[in-house]
Amino acid sequence: MAANPNTEHIMQVGLGFWASKTLLSVVEMEVFTELAKKPEDLETLRGRLGLHPRSARDFLDALAALGFLRRVDGKYANTPATDLYLDKHKPTYIGGLLEMANQRLYGHWSHLTEALRTGKQQNEAKDGAAGTSPFEALYADPARLRVFLAAMTGISRGANLAIAQKIPWSRYRTFADVGTAQGDLAVQIALANPHLGGIGFDLAEVGPIFEDYVEQHALSERLRFVAGNFFKDPLPKTDVITMGHILHDWNIEEKKMLVCKAYEAISPGGALVVYDAVIDDDRSQNAFGLMMSLNMLIETPGGFDYTGAECTGWMKEAGFREARVEHLAGPDSMVVGIK
Amino acid sequence: MAANPNTEHIMQVGLGFWASKTLLSVVEMEVFTELAKKPEDLETLRGRLGLHPRSARDFLDALAALGFLRRVDGKYANTPATDLYLDKHKPTYIGGLLEMANQRLYGHWSHLTEALRTGKQQNEAKDGAAGTSPFEALYADPARLRVFLAAMTGISRGANLAIAQKIPWSRYRTFADVGTAQGDLAVQIALANPHLGGIGFDLAEVGPIFEDYVEQHALSERLRFVAGNFFKDPLPKTDVITMGHILHDWNIEEKKMLVCKAYEAISPGGALVVYDAVIDDDRSQNAFGLMMSLNMLIETPGGFDYTGAECTGWMKEAGFREARVEHLAGPDSMVVGIK
Repeated sequence: MAANPNTEHIMQVGLGFWASKTLLSVVEMEVFTELAKKPEDLETLRGRLGLHPRSARDFLDALAALGFLRRVDGKYANTPATDLYLDKHKPTYIGGLLEMANQRLYGHWSHLTEALRTGKQQNEAKDGAAGTSPFEALYADPARLRVFLAAMTGISRGANLAIAQKIPWSRYRTFADVGTAQGDLAVQIALANPHLGGIGFDLAEVGPIFEDYVEQHALSERLRFVAGNFFKDPLPKTDVITMGHILHDWNIEEKKMLVCKAYEAISPGGALVVYDAVIDDDRSQNAFGLMMSLNMLIETPGGFDYTGAECTGWMKEAGFREARVEHLAGPDSMVVGIK
Repeated sequence: MAANPNTEHIMQVGLGFWASKTLLSVVEMEVFTELAKKPEDLETLRGRLGLHPRSARDFLDALAALGFLRRVDGKYANTPATDLYLDKHKPTYIGGLLEMANQRLYGHWSHLTEALRTGKQQNEAKDGAAGTSPFEALYADPARLRVFLAAMTGISRGANLAIAQKIPWSRYRTFADVGTAQGDLAVQIALANPHLGGIGFDLAEVGPIFEDYVEQHALSERLRFVAGNFFKDPLPKTDVITMGHILHDWNIEEKKMLVCKAYEAISPGGALVVYDAVIDDDRSQNAFGLMMSLNMLIETPGGFDYTGAECTGWMKEAGFREARVEHLAGPDSMVVGIK
């Protein structure tokens, strides 16, 4: 780029919301779920999805050119990735995050400039009472809560599968996943480690959704729900505490408080495993983690994403005898503290 | 992807609006224009831009990680590309398109699903009288018109430079650029070909803006403005007619009418040169062209982008003795018809 600067990267990113919104709309219309049954031609698909003739073909061909559909002999079909991850009827579905992005984040991000100038969140809580938890508005509406919790599974699946393998689970007998949402991390750990018993810890409203999800994976005998508020209540006593995409929601004092509370709850030799899109210490590589931090600006009163060095620092300060960073999947890394 | 499907491409595109809006906001704040003077540290830049302390560093580091800024010894600096193309004070500035995307398109695209279901445009003219030209609302507001015309220069510069070289201009003496906007195509052709005289043809409101732009490039002796409406008026008689990002704005009848009108206006042996993000004939490669067609759905009552085969067909039908497609730059190709 230095030798021969060109405009393509600028235009590609600057108009990147086109591809993004095209994918979000096709997820909204459940096209991948439809095509998981069988490939369909343009007219059948158009009729079934209720698309106007004017641009149906451009829409589907754009998705094919972007690599999300295949078009073979005039029929549109899923790719292996979209079939596995964007068919709503498969347990591997990660479209919940894209549904939430479509319903909420795309619009909230239109106020990024205002957020950057004011430091204030730009979501449903924007004009609400100061000090309202960002999750109160979300949790008050059961339909929106279900979308949010499924979204969290979507963004966490890759990391959850990695954690189920990368922690030396044979050393431990129990764990508690704090801020468990649907419970996908607890489920993946339990599936890969039949000797473990675990707890999903979250606000009471989450209970039925967690229990449904655990039941679907036939894990009700080893995983149970404990209702609690991690600001008011102690965390469950256990060998290992996990927190996936939790710490970044909160401000620096709240983050340190959560790390201290976890230290108190786990047994000697036990571990705290937190993961997020942890930013590289030089803050120059993990663009996704840095933008996730901007997403916390949009979504929360004080949340931010952090570097591995910052997080291991908070752990040492809380009393953990060692702490290390390990990459999981995509932009996500875990920070592991040993008591 | 087939052998080992993964979630990264899905997440990267699905959340691609984060990077997009981050770039659009930094262009809005004129950070590249500021840094073109000299590199600045975080605090100086933060103060000058009016950024809140909460996320200023995340914002600038995200832009660095995305490749739009460099951070050296604690100071932020432009990259060669952002310095050349996103500093407002340079004639190479292409940020007009991103300013328009930020002010208008990002929000209008939030209604993509509705557009796909109804076939109706989703911009300022959405709730206006049926049949209103998409350009009337735009042209009625001089400030918005200036942004739009500069945006058109931004998206056209690469193609304009290529056309100035790739057409055998030595065969011709005169040309008219129809729908000329700021006049960048006319300017680039005239700069590269000192023997040519040209006309910029557009609605009367565009005249002063065209003349300013031509004056800036010291071309007023060879380029002049002719006011006209290409639906009501004949096109200027000339050797070559060019139309850059014009044909895709209109429906099929309007497209064919414009091609016929151009045929009538040019001299025997003359050429019609139209360019757009021409879609490949298989409609499977040029994702940008296909999404540009969705942008025409959002922005116009009947516009769409088209393949090279479609356009050469309209030219043959209008009487051109030959017609061919040639790639220009990025997603843009030209279709050249010889009378």
